[in-house]
Amino acid sequence: MQNSTICALASGVGGAVALVRLSGPQALPLLRKFLRKDYTFEPRKQVFCTLYDGENVLDKALITYFQAPHSFTGEDVVEFALHASPYIKGRVLELLCQLGAVPAQRGEFSERAFLNGKMDLLEAQGLCDLIAAGNKASHDLAMNSLDGKMSARLETLKQKLAALLAQIEVRLDDVDEEMPPLSADFIEKELTDVLAQIKLLTNTFSVGRLIKEGLKVAIVGVPNSGKSSLLNALVGFDRAIVADACGTTRDTVEETLEINGQKIILTDTAGIRDHALDPAEQEGMRRSRLAMEKADVILFVQDTSREASDEEKKLVTEVQKQNKRTCIVRNKIDKSVRKTDLTLTPYPWIEVSCKSGEGLPDLRNFLTETVENPHTADGLMISNLRHYEALLRAQTELEEALLRLSANAGGEIYAEHIRAALHYLRDLIGEVTPDDVLGIIFSQFCMGK
Amino acid sequence: MQNSTICALASGVGGAVALVRLSGPQALPLLRKFLRKDYTFEPRKQVFCTLYDGENVLDKALITYFQAPHSFTGEDVVEFALHASPYIKGRVLELLCQLGAVPAQRGEFSERAFLNGKMDLLEAQGLCDLIAAGNKASHDLAMNSLDGKMSARLETLKQKLAALLAQIEVRLDDVDEEMPPLSADFIEKELTDVLAQIKLLTNTFSVGRLIKEGLKVAIVGVPNSGKSSLLNALVGFDRAIVADACGTTRDTVEETLEINGQKIILTDTAGIRDHALDPAEQEGMRRSRLAMEKADVILFVQDTSREASDEEKKLVTEVQKQNKRTCIVRNKIDKSVRKTDLTLTPYPWIEVSCKSGEGLPDLRNFLTETVENPHTADGLMISNLRHYEALLRAQTELEEALLRLSANAGGEIYAEHIRAALHYLRDLIGEVTPDDVLGIIFSQFCMGK
Repeated sequence: MQNSTICALASGVGGAVALVRLSGPQALPLLRKFLRKDYTFEPRKQVFCTLYDGENVLDKALITYFQAPHSFTGEDVVEFALHASPYIKGRVLELLCQLGAVPAQRGEFSERAFLNGKMDLLEAQGLCDLIAAGNKASHDLAMNSLDGKMSARLETLKQKLAALLAQIEVRLDDVDEEMPPLSADFIEKELTDVLAQIKLLTNTFSVGRLIKEGLKVAIVGVPNSGKSSLLNALVGFDRAIVADACGTTRDTVEETLEINGQKIILTDTAGIRDHALDPAEQEGMRRSRLAMEKADVILFVQDTSREASDEEKKLVTEVQKQNKRTCIVRNKIDKSVRKTDLTLTPYPWIEVSCKSGEGLPDLRNFLTETVENPHTADGLMISNLRHYEALLRAQTELEEALLRLSANAGGEIYAEHIRAALHYLRDLIGEVTPDDVLGIIFSQFCMGK
Repeated sequence: MQNSTICALASGVGGAVALVRLSGPQALPLLRKFLRKDYTFEPRKQVFCTLYDGENVLDKALITYFQAPHSFTGEDVVEFALHASPYIKGRVLELLCQLGAVPAQRGEFSERAFLNGKMDLLEAQGLCDLIAAGNKASHDLAMNSLDGKMSARLETLKQKLAALLAQIEVRLDDVDEEMPPLSADFIEKELTDVLAQIKLLTNTFSVGRLIKEGLKVAIVGVPNSGKSSLLNALVGFDRAIVADACGTTRDTVEETLEINGQKIILTDTAGIRDHALDPAEQEGMRRSRLAMEKADVILFVQDTSREASDEEKKLVTEVQKQNKRTCIVRNKIDKSVRKTDLTLTPYPWIEVSCKSGEGLPDLRNFLTETVENPHTADGLMISNLRHYEALLRAQTELEEALLRLSANAGGEIYAEHIRAALHYLRDLIGEVTPDDVLGIIFSQFCMGK
């Protein structure tokens, strides 16, 4: 597979300049087919070339050659910085494929970089997350991965476990017991130490995931309590994140925005069309419940100028059942009448007027405080489910090993669990990851990377 | 103005790589503000740099420095090939502006290239057209401009006129008549020669414009003659051009497609909602007439299985009034009944079945034959209205000069007209174009170029 030369558009739609990337052993010979002059390509130096399509000039473009292994993929790479016309982009890719290049799959450049040892799986994943990052928090998260900080941390743990395992294994082979035995205290200390560090990482997942995927906020409340006004007020206050070209579908009742550098996804349950079928109230409640189940945070909106209805009280019960971080939003405080008072519930409350904007800053802070950072001192966090699960498995294996150790089990028993833990750490950075799993991981990358 | 350093995103929306371009005297010092290491920037050589935002790593990116005057703009230029995350792109531009760079206006990089003598106005216009080109024909047209072929042609004509003018003027100053007089035959020959060449160019405008802007085709016919089916059959046959991200509004009744490498804009007059108000027939006729007036070609669709109605006959009269290239499309030939026969009209006709696809290839050829090339031997064509008008003015002035010459007017009279013609040629390539006109021209360019 790696004998093929792949090509793809690496830049986006429109613009003045388009980048076409070519990687593989035929990169330079394929480039030459577009040229009429014998240009000299010094690695990394941009050369202004006239590209031909048969007899006709196709473009005048800056071409850069990266010589293997000193390129992103580790292979020979050629980059065309073309004039970004739909015709030129399309024709260059068409000609490249006619000449024998293969259209790159999603993430195939990164996959080759990984397979050629230019980056490990964590760094590659960081790269993918970096390109998708729409705000500072998720950017920093991804950069720590891309930067190799996460890999270095896991490498340390891996080495510590491997050293311990080697010491245990060598004694298992030592039938004549010529070596001094390892003390159970020493083994326990080593395992506990690694386990603690892994737990530090797994504990960051809940927040890491929120940073990467965004905090899901359900706005619930009885009809006319001002749910939509609250949504609009929050959206109007902060710039809404523009939907990316990569093609995210937008639910009509969802708004994604950025508050204090944090991605927030607001769901207005009022936006769900009320079909007003038979037991209409039931249906509304069911939908609110669904939204709350998916949410990380619940905003329970009340109209303070009205008495709490039976419906509202029922909703309180539903909210309490969810057992999630919740805030009572006491809305319409601009009205002179104040009646509803459900602040008896165990949740914090914020008084708000969507009209005057009063209370909105407090509400915004409440939302972003949810994502306060319990991360490790060096800012390392886990945000990827696959990584989280691998760490969790390693954690379980180490706990099991400790249990067996304290029960005075034989070395071959707890060695087995240490070996398994080590395997999960190796899988995390891609050392032992099966090809089909790699395929799935890289297929989630964007085109041209 | 040129003392400022401008910045802009040069690549498109989305993608894996984003290109930010910086041009002006502060390009390199501004880049240094992002760096913590003293990288060496050899011109045109890509350097892999770690970019900082305060204490944090913002990105690891390939940076290229182009030293004045050997850059696109002729100024110092720095290009950042960034990871294309919305956050990184936005933050780099934000920081650049905080540090003193100015967001570039549309076409400002090209305008600087023009002002620094890197390209003339025709070449710059060619560049703008090249980036917009969606098919081969418009691409080739633009490339001839960008390539300097058009400029070289005009330069030759300009020099010829200037030489002639100098010879005439020197004799106007020669009060003692020491120089041998110029023969009227010689002057006439020179003027006629230049005039013929200018006419060759102005004659290409009608086709050049069609290639650049697309051939506008109005599909007319009485209700139920199969106009929409014809439109759909043509669109289905050829790939529809995808609307560009730059934001073209699409009329609901218009479809843009590419046939034989030519841009075709089909307008289905049936698509215009019939408001069926009082004199409904009148209104339908009025709308069809409007569409025909704007069109380059008319396709008059008939249902061959029905008798020609009075309405249809009236429509024929309307079509004839338009005096445009027209084709009678005898539709529904798959039906056994054949009744209508309006082929008496002076127009060619093609028998078509939208069901079976019969006749469609002929119809496609009819459409693209309309744009057959009456261009000059070397493929030079005029497609820009401003260029056309300037050439037309030069043409008028030269005709006037010839008229005066043949009427034995004094040299100062026809010299005046030759001077004016020369001025229009100079304006065309931007030698004497006023600043405000330049501003308007470059503001039509795309961002980042």
